[in-house]
Amino acid sequence: MNDKTIPATMRALELRAVDGRPESLALVERPVPRLAKNKVLVRIGAASVNPSDLMFLQGLYGQKKKLPVVPGFEGAGEVVASGDGSGMLARALVGRRVACAAPHDGDGTWAEYMVADASQCIPLIKEVSIEQGAAMIVNPFSAYALMKNVRYGLDRAVAQTAAASALGQMINRLALSRNIPLVNIVRRAEQVELLRQAGATHVLNSSEPDFDERLKDLCRSLRVTLAFDAVAGELTGQLLRAMPNGARVIVYGALSMGACMIDPRGLIFERKRVEGFWLAEWMRAQNLLSKLVASRRVQKLLASDLQTEIRARLPLEDAARGLHDYAGHMTGGKILLVPAMHKERG
Amino acid sequence: MNDKTIPATMRALELRAVDGRPESLALVERPVPRLAKNKVLVRIGAASVNPSDLMFLQGLYGQKKKLPVVPGFEGAGEVVASGDGSGMLARALVGRRVACAAPHDGDGTWAEYMVADASQCIPLIKEVSIEQGAAMIVNPFSAYALMKNVRYGLDRAVAQTAAASALGQMINRLALSRNIPLVNIVRRAEQVELLRQAGATHVLNSSEPDFDERLKDLCRSLRVTLAFDAVAGELTGQLLRAMPNGARVIVYGALSMGACMIDPRGLIFERKRVEGFWLAEWMRAQNLLSKLVASRRVQKLLASDLQTEIRARLPLEDAARGLHDYAGHMTGGKILLVPAMHKERG
Repeated sequence: MNDKTIPATMRALELRAVDGRPESLALVERPVPRLAKNKVLVRIGAASVNPSDLMFLQGLYGQKKKLPVVPGFEGAGEVVASGDGSGMLARALVGRRVACAAPHDGDGTWAEYMVADASQCIPLIKEVSIEQGAAMIVNPFSAYALMKNVRYGLDRAVAQTAAASALGQMINRLALSRNIPLVNIVRRAEQVELLRQAGATHVLNSSEPDFDERLKDLCRSLRVTLAFDAVAGELTGQLLRAMPNGARVIVYGALSMGACMIDPRGLIFERKRVEGFWLAEWMRAQNLLSKLVASRRVQKLLASDLQTEIRARLPLEDAARGLHDYAGHMTGGKILLVPAMHKERG
Repeated sequence: MNDKTIPATMRALELRAVDGRPESLALVERPVPRLAKNKVLVRIGAASVNPSDLMFLQGLYGQKKKLPVVPGFEGAGEVVASGDGSGMLARALVGRRVACAAPHDGDGTWAEYMVADASQCIPLIKEVSIEQGAAMIVNPFSAYALMKNVRYGLDRAVAQTAAASALGQMINRLALSRNIPLVNIVRRAEQVELLRQAGATHVLNSSEPDFDERLKDLCRSLRVTLAFDAVAGELTGQLLRAMPNGARVIVYGALSMGACMIDPRGLIFERKRVEGFWLAEWMRAQNLLSKLVASRRVQKLLASDLQTEIRARLPLEDAARGLHDYAGHMTGGKILLVPAMHKERG
């Protein structure tokens, strides 16, 4: 921590209330955090804005933190220091470019510096830019992990909701590459078009009156036995009803904000199941080897199936504007916060 | 089949429409069914009336059958014949007293005779009466199988809805015998009293205004991580919310007729699960040994924890009256249909 290039203070976005009001998120100058053993300090090169961040700002995300707190669940940058007395892993990371997730109980990535658990940092291979790395965990890893649920020879086809989201589009590309028939469900006509252009074969608009009928027909003809659901509410039940006996819905988001409506007869008589997926939990359940394998596979795919489209790069002081813009059209590419942008201008 | 004591025709209740109207269930004279290989003919001594029968009559049960059909999911009686060319098992059953479940696609127990799969018959030990045997499968086996889900050392306490039902009371007695803390949830004040008299320690009335609060307190203080739910609807979600991370609700009934309302955040962030239980499916998944063990354990407990209280015995021609009566107070003991009762009178 006595590296002379590390300043005493840093600029950071600070969340003071989870009421969703722009003025509850303030740009402040605060001390660069101190490091404990096996922690590393990451100089954030870019941090991404995800739907889960928007939910967190409004107090709607499943994970709560003590306020005030720096938001931002993921980012990428360079490791500039490790805590005193750290083990080999933390020390080996110093000087390396990494993707990093925010600690469960502490400050996140929307700042110039963040403290991360060494074990939660993913060293980037040279082909991966800081920008792609900054958006690598929440979407690409989730897409990869969700697709791990497709049981070879058992699940012949899959369905997904919110198919036009960044994550949905990655799942679509992975399914196309792997020749797995996929039913993409979206809520607006322009999203149907977007997915068709991305090569999707089956796209349904849940706002159309014959949606339920068409979903049933497709699930039956393709034999869809697994669905990924980011919407929840009635749609979870519609999915489960449309699929044959023994089918599963894996809920990983709740964009509708509604309770999943599940027909109990499906659970009782048809061996249907509803499960949940949370990336943090999935990561925790992996051993070191499978984490390494996953991290390598995901990075190799960042230039193709798991590529993140970036719509805008903003300095921290423009975060409020960027959030508002992002909330308006989440399917138009990621917004990245770039802490260094301010410095170059000033 | 050439046993001279088997008549050519029999009396049976025949369901002609699943509209719940009394006249849709008629007492008829029909041929005694013919036997195929590995099937046995059971002379029904007594057949029970369960909530699942009532749902079946109204077309609300998950399992549908081609009409007209003899209803009745379970009964007991004597095996009087086996089909030509049957194997050892079917032949060995002739002359024995058995409990039997109706075949999935054929006529049931509300008749003088029923054809059963030999493998679906459970020979009764001498301590078990035909009457107890007639009500042995649906409730005692379900109670036994549901309690198998309590993981030793992991689930320290359990909750259940519809706790005053015949099945609920059995679960209460099993939990008391095994020293497993159990939260019993009922919907009426007199059911609270009934369970208290049965020795239940924790009884909650879901109709009371502070129910949600008290459920949360109890689940927290007892560390309830598993719930059996026969009500579905909002209650499933209330149970899941009240329990800590990693908890499960096993839905085995849908008395509320409503969709299970599940908070997606519990599924995603708290590793909570909703599963279903259906006895027929559970039976199918058991191997011969575990079926034998279960059948022996259940029969041994029929005189104590798994005893069925019998409210009335009715001849087939009084079935409509009995059903109406049963639908009115399901918690007041079982109603048995006794095909031979008519003969004694006439």
